[in-house]
Amino acid sequence: MPNAGGRIRFRPQGTQAPADSRLNLLEIARKAGIGLENKCGGVGKCGKCRLQVTKGRLTPTTRAERQLLTQAELAAGYRLACQASPRDVKSVVDVQVPALSFALKQRFQIEGLAYSGKPDPAVRVYEVKLKPPAIKDVRSDLSRLKDTLSAREGVAFKHASLAALEQLPGVLRANGWKAGVLLRDEELLAVRPPGMVRTYGLAVDLGTSKVALFLMDMASGETLAELGFMNPQLPWGEDIMSRIQYANTGAEEAAGLQELILRRIGEELEQMLAPHGLDPSDIVETCLVGNTAMHHLFAGLPVRQLGFAPYVPATTSAASVTAKELGLAVLPQGLIYLPPPIAGFVGSDMLAAIMATRLHRQKGPVLLMDLGTNTELALKVDERIVCCSCASGPAFEGGALRHGMRAAPGAIEKVRVGTGGEVLVSTVEDAPARGICGSGILDSLAALKNADIITPAGRMLQEPAGVVEENGELAFRLAPFADGDGWVTVTQNDVREVQKAKGAVRAGIEMLMHHTGIGPSDLLRVIIAGAFGNYIDPLSALSIALIPPVSPRRIRQVGNAAGVGSRAMLCSSSLRREAERLAGRLEYLELVAYPKSELYFASAMMLSEDAVAAYMRKWEKRRK
Amino acid sequence: MPNAGGRIRFRPQGTQAPADSRLNLLEIARKAGIGLENKCGGVGKCGKCRLQVTKGRLTPTTRAERQLLTQAELAAGYRLACQASPRDVKSVVDVQVPALSFALKQRFQIEGLAYSGKPDPAVRVYEVKLKPPAIKDVRSDLSRLKDTLSAREGVAFKHASLAALEQLPGVLRANGWKAGVLLRDEELLAVRPPGMVRTYGLAVDLGTSKVALFLMDMASGETLAELGFMNPQLPWGEDIMSRIQYANTGAEEAAGLQELILRRIGEELEQMLAPHGLDPSDIVETCLVGNTAMHHLFAGLPVRQLGFAPYVPATTSAASVTAKELGLAVLPQGLIYLPPPIAGFVGSDMLAAIMATRLHRQKGPVLLMDLGTNTELALKVDERIVCCSCASGPAFEGGALRHGMRAAPGAIEKVRVGTGGEVLVSTVEDAPARGICGSGILDSLAALKNADIITPAGRMLQEPAGVVEENGELAFRLAPFADGDGWVTVTQNDVREVQKAKGAVRAGIEMLMHHTGIGPSDLLRVIIAGAFGNYIDPLSALSIALIPPVSPRRIRQVGNAAGVGSRAMLCSSSLRREAERLAGRLEYLELVAYPKSELYFASAMMLSEDAVAAYMRKWEKRRK
Repeated sequence: MPNAGGRIRFRPQGTQAPADSRLNLLEIARKAGIGLENKCGGVGKCGKCRLQVTKGRLTPTTRAERQLLTQAELAAGYRLACQASPRDVKSVVDVQVPALSFALKQRFQIEGLAYSGKPDPAVRVYEVKLKPPAIKDVRSDLSRLKDTLSAREGVAFKHASLAALEQLPGVLRANGWKAGVLLRDEELLAVRPPGMVRTYGLAVDLGTSKVALFLMDMASGETLAELGFMNPQLPWGEDIMSRIQYANTGAEEAAGLQELILRRIGEELEQMLAPHGLDPSDIVETCLVGNTAMHHLFAGLPVRQLGFAPYVPATTSAASVTAKELGLAVLPQGLIYLPPPIAGFVGSDMLAAIMATRLHRQKGPVLLMDLGTNTELALKVDERIVCCSCASGPAFEGGALRHGMRAAPGAIEKVRVGTGGEVLVSTVEDAPARGICGSGILDSLAALKNADIITPAGRMLQEPAGVVEENGELAFRLAPFADGDGWVTVTQNDVREVQKAKGAVRAGIEMLMHHTGIGPSDLLRVIIAGAFGNYIDPLSALSIALIPPVSPRRIRQVGNAAGVGSRAMLCSSSLRREAERLAGRLEYLELVAYPKSELYFASAMMLSEDAVAAYMRKWEKRRK
Repeated sequence: MPNAGGRIRFRPQGTQAPADSRLNLLEIARKAGIGLENKCGGVGKCGKCRLQVTKGRLTPTTRAERQLLTQAELAAGYRLACQASPRDVKSVVDVQVPALSFALKQRFQIEGLAYSGKPDPAVRVYEVKLKPPAIKDVRSDLSRLKDTLSAREGVAFKHASLAALEQLPGVLRANGWKAGVLLRDEELLAVRPPGMVRTYGLAVDLGTSKVALFLMDMASGETLAELGFMNPQLPWGEDIMSRIQYANTGAEEAAGLQELILRRIGEELEQMLAPHGLDPSDIVETCLVGNTAMHHLFAGLPVRQLGFAPYVPATTSAASVTAKELGLAVLPQGLIYLPPPIAGFVGSDMLAAIMATRLHRQKGPVLLMDLGTNTELALKVDERIVCCSCASGPAFEGGALRHGMRAAPGAIEKVRVGTGGEVLVSTVEDAPARGICGSGILDSLAALKNADIITPAGRMLQEPAGVVEENGELAFRLAPFADGDGWVTVTQNDVREVQKAKGAVRAGIEMLMHHTGIGPSDLLRVIIAGAFGNYIDPLSALSIALIPPVSPRRIRQVGNAAGVGSRAMLCSSSLRREAERLAGRLEYLELVAYPKSELYFASAMMLSEDAVAAYMRKWEKRRK
């Protein structure tokens, strides 16, 4: 098919495919390497292949779509991929693929938007051939190399690592005075036999719970392999605060936590490298981002002062440390670049997410949120970017809920409640229900509120079908348990937990907006980053007033933006400088010190926009 | 006594004392803390307290001096300290104290001229008091420190060592937000409790045989302690070449040599620090100089290529490495500064000697020589400084001689042979003779040649008294052995060994002079550096044509100039920069490649100036 200029762009990947009007989007996506969920074989029966049109138009909606998608979804531009095609070969259409629509295998990968910047790595490789020494030319090996690089490549370096110096004489003499040399900024980093063409790097996104590793070809910016695993420190504190408290019990404990993560990254890396025929010493540079506590523990810095107000980090500067000094099993003289943390509870992962989404270059106002146990927000308004941290707690990740669980097989991840009280749930891998995960509980609250089973204030009513009393509290039955004994329920207490979590986030958003003098209608875009944020249904988030009232079309879910930012900073020196400059001008807003913060927190717990506004008005009146 | 402007300056120390005309120089020296040898109680009988007047005049020579000093010594300005006084209180006199005139205890210290430059250390210390954090001021500890240092002291730093970051939060909180902080260039190096006022450094002169350590107060430039010990690598090769060959037997062997010296320096340092109540981690910076092979072995660089022509070093650049990376037991994040080696056999110790003597700033032509197993030369002519290396071999240090020994008790260190063949020897500590050391063998050759017992070509005559035949070769008896069995002798072969050694040096000097277009009469000064050079009698060196014919007044013996240079570079960043710039413009002359080098080597073995010149003329004629 000739390219007639039309194209479909799939986000968050950024993949483009020709607009072939003979195919539907499910087929176009498959040809472009994007596997979408589809249980019914693409005949408009299962409703799993949802995607959201954010730009351009497709063929009109079909009857199947009008049956399987809600009014709100249709209004927000949702379509079923199997039912929609490009209007013609000139159609230019952008679609957003919700995380839940990805085929399972793809869904559990470490997704993230692609970063399209040009690589500009700190480490570069040159192949050189030197003139051998003679009795009339007794320059040292290093001087000889310096002179040749300067003359042939116009490249200068000032220092040499001891390790490079150690290798240089042997490599030159064993290879007829040829070598591959690696320079890092003004340093001769390593010397290798000639014929080595690629520079490999490691990007890390170090979370409290999950760790993602990316093996990169730094010269091309290509991701060669990705790997995710649970943080091995988890047994010593599920959340940041308990991790910090454990580290504070003694220097040995803190060192033990550092040792754990260093060793585990080394082990996983080896697994990741083996299929590529690579060795850890081939990793010549590493970039690691994470929340400030993870950053400090990784770098061996004390976290005691992060454990109590005003939560002061030891450092908010970028750092470069040799792998040898830190004890990470990669090229010993290779550097580990640690981008700057922003504040005690806004880490370098948030800076990486900002870089990945180019928040600082977007025309604002734009809100970036990274939802999790701790939720970080950044709001760009004019030239300012104001950040804050919200203690959202474990509810978003399934913690603190009666039947909460991670998004493992059997977790209820999607919930619809009909007006007649009929309940539809879908579970991860369609396995029998074993519990409820974060996206499922948000969906539940939205559905229960919309069905008037809970009030906007969060009180569960006793009367509606499905509501039962268990252990002295009201609970709503979602689905029978996998083992046939009892039901997976949403309890009154679960509702309160989610209210606290979403209230903390929404209050943060409100204070950021108030601080910068904007309202929800000013927001051009709301970007939801992070693995969890990728799986929630934005319509549910809007419905329970987690996100301020904006058009769903303005919401973007971008997946692991921190991982993308980490990879981008690994491969680009200029991006690092840009990030460091940016970090210096990010503003941090301490929410608990914000005027009337208690009002914001209380009102934000309401489960509808009307209720939030009403609470605020009532409170203001009472104060007068 | 009022200071009337007169003064006596004692070199190489640089110590000055008022010119008190009521005292003799032995008494003035003692008051100034300089102990001179004197067996007779200062009555002009023992002749041990010799010194050389290099500027100004003292009281006229006495009868005792005319009896105990030779015609040549008197002409060269030698006096006996006990016989000479300042002419009046306005006398301005410089005297040079030969190493042999120092009282024994002092003689075995690590002497060296004092360096008078102003300290300008890379590591500086600041005492700070910070404003504690508050809910409205949550800057990180590092930012807080940066801001305060910048505002109060006008001092900025860019990076922080991990170790400093690790200490910062704890120290600040335990000391009411006060701390002593150490900056190194643009790095925060370390953080200490407040009240720490001094910055300690370690200067090292690492020789093939001897190692000298200096504990320095870097802010004042004061030497707090000095310590010398034998290089623990000695059992694995007495000279550089055999040390290199051993290292080349395998990577483990080389690493073993490195480990030996690192550990030993650490142990000796601890001994040195203990009386000062200091700990190795108080050493925040180290400067180490040495010959290129010692430099490479210390830094873990390969020395294979130093073992064969054209003797190419791995590097001739300055290097700064953390103590942790190298494995030296001082402050782990503290740097070890390694000034640049100059060539395969002209090390950073020679650069240090050049800096200490300010050769590059002297009005030339000036010749600097560091005598030893390997002798390094540097000749300054106009703006050029040309260096070379002479393979002088072990004879200067008592090696390869029938009865050679180090300058230990019982070593014959001074020899006079009267015209009647009577032999006068003096031994170290006046102990019964056990052998002959370097200064003794030079004296012997000069005396034997002057008494016509050996010819200028170095042939020993059979007839003179004292000459005997032993084991099929001629030998001259110096003194009976301590154990009464036989004699300490100078053999015909010993003469040949010394001829080879001194010939190598003299040939180097000749080629340097030829290369730069000057002659001996152009030399304004000849500076002899190094421990061995300090003990030789310059008149003997002139007599056997080791040194080209210059007035003895132009000769300076400055002791361990490399140690002084190492200390100076430890304490001054600007001096390091000066040294690095200088190293870049030093010329290296490869002697074996010099035209007619074989002529220079052959003629330089002659033991008189006439013979050297005659040999050269004869050879030139034969060539025509």
